[in-house]
Amino acid sequence: MAQPASSVPDFSRGDGLLPAIAQDATTSEVLMLAFMNAESFAQTVATGEAVYFSRSRGRLWHKGEESGHIQKVQDILVDCDADTILLKVEQVGGAACHEGYRSCFFRQSTSDGWRTVGEKVFDPDDVYGQESSDDE
Amino acid sequence: MAQPASSVPDFSRGDGLLPAIAQDATTSEVLMLAFMNAESFAQTVATGEAVYFSRSRGRLWHKGEESGHIQKVQDILVDCDADTILLKVEQVGGAACHEGYRSCFFRQSTSDGWRTVGEKVFDPDDVYGQESSDDE
Repeated sequence: MAQPASSVPDFSRGDGLLPAIAQDATTSEVLMLAFMNAESFAQTVATGEAVYFSRSRGRLWHKGEESGHIQKVQDILVDCDADTILLKVEQVGGAACHEGYRSCFFRQSTSDGWRTVGEKVFDPDDVYGQESSDDE
Repeated sequence: MAQPASSVPDFSRGDGLLPAIAQDATTSEVLMLAFMNAESFAQTVATGEAVYFSRSRGRLWHKGEESGHIQKVQDILVDCDADTILLKVEQVGGAACHEGYRSCFFRQSTSDGWRTVGEKVFDPDDVYGQESSDDE
């Protein structure tokens, strides 16, 4: 996949960090949202695996670098304002969320409050141990 | 739909503005991303229609207020960190994007650069006139 024109996405917006949505390329489930800077976007394009910028760690974050649950990028789209990225991915390991769910969006608003609706695929302690996680 | 617990979503993060993804409830297509503050989220819950906070206008933005292309909210989900919102919506008018496409993500990265892949549903000039738009 060749490097797209430098102005798209427009990293001059959003303090150089743009939201990037990861969507399962097969099921269309929205898996997670993280942020990208220009360098992480370039690495994503070059490697075909999702690389984000972790705001909490202040560095590039190759999704799955610890858990092995990488995201193989099948398509990259950008929105009309060129300030949001959409990745269609194959989620290795079947779960994007560091809490073990397929999708990070596993809580749904109901008339009785928030309800867990997501499917848990793994136990985080088995994957990360007690101390750390692959969270942003 | 009752008001969820005040700590979810966590509007103390992201300077009080959290990204909100709108996904077509029927087709699962990702339609757009905008931002919400606590007030816009509360209005979304209360009215069942998507209300965002427009960063460019500096005010609440009832999606479709000008075009009529409102979003009827069927489900509200929040991610593991409680700092991103996912709306599953019925997109009235069939197009979320102010440029007339079903989805704002109508450009795809290819080896030849960015290619338009989205389906255009309306002509923006017919909906907004020449001067304004329902863009964020």
